[in-house]
Amino acid sequence: SIDGRRLWDSLMAMAEIGPTENGGSCRLALTPEDAAGRHLLLDWCEALGCTWQVDRVGNLFIRRAGKRDDLAPVAMGSHLDTQPKGGRFDGILGVLAGLEVLRTLADRGIVTERPLVLVVWTNEEGSRFAPAMVASGTYAGAFSVASTLAREDRDGVTFGEALEACGYAGESPVGEPRLDSFFELHIEQGPVLEEEGKTIGVVTGVQGMRWFDVTIAGQSAHAGPTPMCYRRDALAAAARLIDRLQAHALADESGDTKVTCGCLEIVSASRNVVPGDVKLTIDLRHVIESELDALQAYFEGLLGEVGEACGVTMTQERIWASPVVEFAPECVAAVERGPQEQGLTYRRMMSGAGHDAVYVSRVAPTAMIFVPCRDGISHNEAEYATPEDCAAGTQVLCDAILERANR
Amino acid sequence: SIDGRRLWDSLMAMAEIGPTENGGSCRLALTPEDAAGRHLLLDWCEALGCTWQVDRVGNLFIRRAGKRDDLAPVAMGSHLDTQPKGGRFDGILGVLAGLEVLRTLADRGIVTERPLVLVVWTNEEGSRFAPAMVASGTYAGAFSVASTLAREDRDGVTFGEALEACGYAGESPVGEPRLDSFFELHIEQGPVLEEEGKTIGVVTGVQGMRWFDVTIAGQSAHAGPTPMCYRRDALAAAARLIDRLQAHALADESGDTKVTCGCLEIVSASRNVVPGDVKLTIDLRHVIESELDALQAYFEGLLGEVGEACGVTMTQERIWASPVVEFAPECVAAVERGPQEQGLTYRRMMSGAGHDAVYVSRVAPTAMIFVPCRDGISHNEAEYATPEDCAAGTQVLCDAILERANR
Ligand SMILES: NC(=O)NCCC(=O)O
Ligand SMILES: NC(=O)NCCC(=O)O
Repeated sequence: SIDGRRLWDSLMAMAEIGPTENGGSCRLALTPEDAAGRHLLLDWCEALGCTWQVDRVGNLFIRRAGKRDDLAPVAMGSHLDTQPKGGRFDGILGVLAGLEVLRTLADRGIVTERPLVLVVWTNEEGSRFAPAMVASGTYAGAFSVASTLAREDRDGVTFGEALEACGYAGESPVGEPRLDSFFELHIEQGPVLEEEGKTIGVVTGVQGMRWFDVTIAGQSAHAGPTPMCYRRDALAAAARLIDRLQAHALADESGDTKVTCGCLEIVSASRNVVPGDVKLTIDLRHVIESELDALQAYFEGLLGEVGEACGVTMTQERIWASPVVEFAPECVAAVERGPQEQGLTYRRMMSGAGHDAVYVSRVAPTAMIFVPCRDGISHNEAEYATPEDCAAGTQVLCDAILERANR
Repeated sequence: SIDGRRLWDSLMAMAEIGPTENGGSCRLALTPEDAAGRHLLLDWCEALGCTWQVDRVGNLFIRRAGKRDDLAPVAMGSHLDTQPKGGRFDGILGVLAGLEVLRTLADRGIVTERPLVLVVWTNEEGSRFAPAMVASGTYAGAFSVASTLAREDRDGVTFGEALEACGYAGESPVGEPRLDSFFELHIEQGPVLEEEGKTIGVVTGVQGMRWFDVTIAGQSAHAGPTPMCYRRDALAAAARLIDRLQAHALADESGDTKVTCGCLEIVSASRNVVPGDVKLTIDLRHVIESELDALQAYFEGLLGEVGEACGVTMTQERIWASPVVEFAPECVAAVERGPQEQGLTYRRMMSGAGHDAVYVSRVAPTAMIFVPCRDGISHNEAEYATPEDCAAGTQVLCDAILERANR
């Protein structure tokens, strides 16, 4: 069984690279800090006799030989980059749990049938280079290598330039090595496991997500002399839209409908001016694709209905869509046997957030493991998972990897 | 009768001082442009033999002698400062209509019993120095001279320094001269006259207004993994509040209840983050003070109710209140005789916006005259009133002034 103390020590050591004021980490993708995190990991893995390769978009594959090196490796991992004021667990736990698995096998002198690979996917967070999960997406063929290398950060530095500068512009073709299967341990980033008192989430797939930009065009007017009945108030229309969407999502007793308005901006806002123009974003999610279609249709219908009622024009542009992902049943089953055999509380669940596993699942059988995080908080310096839960998730990862690599 | 063509020419000449790209004007209070506008006006008035004085907060009083110079003068006027992208009429019309009255009397060799005063109030717009109408407010005793002189613009320049710099730091005591009465012609800044096809608004008073800052504290969370039922979404609560206030105001068939949310900001907004903190502003208006009390009580009740329903804390701070103003019946009657005798279409109405007349009415019998403005638009380069309507309003002003000055 894995060493929870050693795992925790490595998490805390990694957190010291790019530490932030309030106990978080800042390792934006392909910065010197990101590279330093990778160096530390490579030092640890080289000490175990592992070899490694980097592909052209910087994905790092650390290999532990198996008995049958002609077979595709069983893979585990996640990402080491963070949000600007990120936490110590989001992504990092999945990578360092993989390290702990490698260390445990080395301690015991266990050699698996298939080789193992620990993967560090580049730029998962998307906060330096949009979109999120771009390098696992490139690995899986969702984006071309050229387009990924050409993506720019806010300062106009391209992904390719940043790769070169930090020393992780690899040469191996993107899409290699092909993987037998992939397992990603991650903090839940939501409150469900904690609220239900469960230690392990056996992740069966990932919600479908669709992102929209909404533009509302009304007419700005003086708040004093303009009677209510003459107004074409873009913010009143936005409020009606949000309130209706909210009620619609809350009315779904399954709890599977999720609607979020995360950004809202009044153009030329002033305290005594009726807002004429508003921009907002809508994030729609559901675990069933056809229900997500229905949710989008409801949303589009609302735009027309509310727009007409409020005398404004409401238009939307769908800027991103990620279909519902169902993970491979055999991988999910391999994960589920862990908590069953160890007597850990667990539940099957869908991931609400996107992860590298979303794209990897397109090219290899995949599953994920969740552990609780305090108050459901992530992307925040206050992000926290207990040493016990981190260890439990890592043990489940280890068991799944061993089963899969020795089958 | 007044000369509409000459009035229009003076309006267009004034608009050339601080002209903006799209046909508006930019004469922020106490800037060189504002001073240049005053110079032009003074040149015109000196040519008529008028004298003038400036008080310690820059209010400019241009005097035309009467037969009985021991009597308090009858006053007219408004302001010459504009919004940063202001129009050619808001304030300016009231001043240049006063000039046109003086010119008409000069042409005819008419000397009124009482002296006349044309007033230019400093910094009405409030866009350089907050709040709006601060110098007429100081004249009327609502603010102390010291506090007004100490107010700072965004660059830290005080009102007093700006007065000195532009040459309008006068010496006459604030509150002098005392006025027999005050008449202010202004564009309506709303759509009512235009929609109803009326030329003249006989303004009987000004709505009461109350300004609030609202703070909503919920909990930010990841939009993906956080079930709807666990959320404490500050924006969803804001939307419910705005929608309810909107419905409440629209349900008042009298049309006298007005509610506006002009500013709304999500703290640390992100597309896939449930908003944890929102700040917004609420502007409540009503023509009856007790109804405004009831409206505020409804609003305060909603904060508790919506806050509880949405799992957030909603607090408000009242940052400004202007009570309902009733203008002097004798001044309103003097205004109303104008359209009646000239056969102009008119209606009695309350002003929805604050004007210098609000404060002046505390110390002298006051009334206002409105003329339509295109599409109700003001505080905008596109602001427009027709030459015919400007002339009609000026004629009504002239008649009221003559009646009042010769009584
Ligand atoms: N894990 C994560 O934050 N992914 C970003 C995409 C999403 O909003 O789910
Ligand atoms: N006329 C005008 O814009 N006054 C400002 C105060 C208000 O909002 O009514």
